[in-house]
This record gives sequence, C-alpha cells and structure tokens, in this order.
Amino acid sequence: MTGQERKTFEVIFEGTGISSGKMRNDIHVEWPTMKESFDLATDEGPFHGGDGTAPPPLALFTAALTGCLMTQIRAFSKRLKVNIGTVEVKTRLHWKGEQLGHEPYETSPVGFEMDVDLDSTASQDDQHRLIAAAKKGCFIETTLLQGLAVAHRLKIDDTWHDA
Amino acid sequence: MTGQERKTFEVIFEGTGISSGKMRNDIHVEWPTMKESFDLATDEGPFHGGDGTAPPPLALFTAALTGCLMTQIRAFSKRLKVNIGTVEVKTRLHWKGEQLGHEPYETSPVGFEMDVDLDSTASQDDQHRLIAAAKKGCFIETTLLQGLAVAHRLKIDDTWHDA
Repeated sequence: MTGQERKTFEVIFEGTGISSGKMRNDIHVEWPTMKESFDLATDEGPFHGGDGTAPPPLALFTAALTGCLMTQIRAFSKRLKVNIGTVEVKTRLHWKGEQLGHEPYETSPVGFEMDVDLDSTASQDDQHRLIAAAKKGCFIETTLLQGLAVAHRLKIDDTWHDA
Repeated sequence: MTGQERKTFEVIFEGTGISSGKMRNDIHVEWPTMKESFDLATDEGPFHGGDGTAPPPLALFTAALTGCLMTQIRAFSKRLKVNIGTVEVKTRLHWKGEQLGHEPYETSPVGFEMDVDLDSTASQDDQHRLIAAAKKGCFIETTLLQGLAVAHRLKIDDTWHDA
C-alpha cells in the first residue's frame, strides 16, 4: 500500500421536482461538477390515477440500480484488466406494502437480486474480483447497504421546518 | 384499530440491462403485475468515457427518489384530506468516493436532503402528517432507511455462482 496516494472526491446530484399533472412530476436533475443537466419525469398509469405519460418512480429506480452496477463493471474491467464482452444483468426488486383499512400504506423492501453475465473468458476468480469491485464502486448499492435516513424539511409560511 | 382490515400487497419490478456502447446500457424494465414495461437507458458523458446518449444512473436515481416521495404526497393528500397545490421538492444527494492510487474507487453516501413545499393552506400539523405518511409510503425511502444488501449471482460456464 506504500507509495499509493489516497484521493477523495465528492459526487453531488441536485433535483428539482414540480408536480405537473394528476400524478406526473417533472424533475430537472443537475450534476453541477460536470455542468450536466437532465430533464426527467415520472407518472403513474391510469390504475393509480395518472396518465401514463412517463415511467413510474420505481421503473427509474430499477434502471438506475441496474445501470449503476453495469457502469462500474465496465469502468473497472479496464482498471482490473478483466476482459468482458456484452454484459447482461437481470435485476429483480421486491417490495411489500401493508395497509390498515383505507389508511396510507407503509412500504418495505423484501429482497433485491441481480444476476450478472459478463460474457467473459476470464478466470472465475477474476470475474468475482470484478463484481466485488463494482459492488463497492456503485453509489446506489453502497447507499442501500449502509442505509440512510433522508433529511426532510417542509416550507410553511416561508419558514423551513424539519419534517 | 378494531374492525379495520389489514392488507398486504407485493410490488415487483424486473430489469434486463444490456451493455450497448462504450458506457451505455439499455435497460428494459417490467412491472409484471400491471403489465407495464419501460425502455430506459443510462450512459456517461465523454469525461467518463461515454457518449452522453442518456442520463447517468445517478440522474435516474435522483429523479426516482424525488418522484417517489412526490407521488406518495399526491396520493396520500387525498386519503388524509390535506389539500395541496403545486408541489415542489428540491433534492440534494451527496456521496463521496475514495481511491487508493489507480485502484477502483469505493463509494459511500454522505447525506441526502429533500426540501418540500406543498403550496398548501392546511395547518402545519396536517402538512407534517402528510409528509410523515409519504415517507413511510415511498418504497425507495423506506428501503434506504432499512438498508439492504443486494444479492448477486455471476454466470460462469452456464452455472450460477453467488457473488
């Protein structure tokens, strides 16, 4: 480990969501460090009272988690010199909801699974080494693993209150 | 609590991601129960070796989390009879990465914040009650709060191995 420099870097994403339909939300996402921004949206289908004009939040989440691991697999395959081909990942995300009468339901995760095919002729050890690095490098997976309470504030009469 | 029926429901999303460019991933997401599917993609900008053809995974994640809370705010405002107007949510997600020399970096969350303006004339108590319900109803927030290790498998020579 000697002679190797330890670096730290910060990654900050900012989103501004505005409700713009029955269930639709338009969300402008900025990545200030990279001077990049993205206009995204969520909606619900008619069954849930929406107009189906955009994917529901959990579809974006499924793509985000899947893409996050895949991106780190690709990036780290070069650094670790593990050759890979066309990567295919199958993700299965399972939650449950519990509801008493007509009260708002409460949610919790049941289990998340990701099956990875690297299309690689590298040794089994090398492939495991690559997946292990990608798991530690995926911002979403490490956040899920560590757990995190989101801090909320509510604006009431032009004053911010912890919520 | 007597006389109120307790119901449980399952929510399952499935994603299939295929690497399709330097850093691009095409992700087909299915919500089997609702018979809905969505074609999404992630990419990285040129700085990170991609072609910028789609948002990076963390942009989708930012929109997913923002949209998730906003959707439950809208849905539960009706059930809790808390009138709201145009909802605006500002989300700030902060991670850090640590890297030794040129090894793959390791990531962790620093803090997630969401500022909510309900554009409401409801009482402060009612607004807090609505946010509290939305937090418990947002599948992504409750998953982050509880924490979760994703289960991985790796396909090597047509056999699945835990990874």
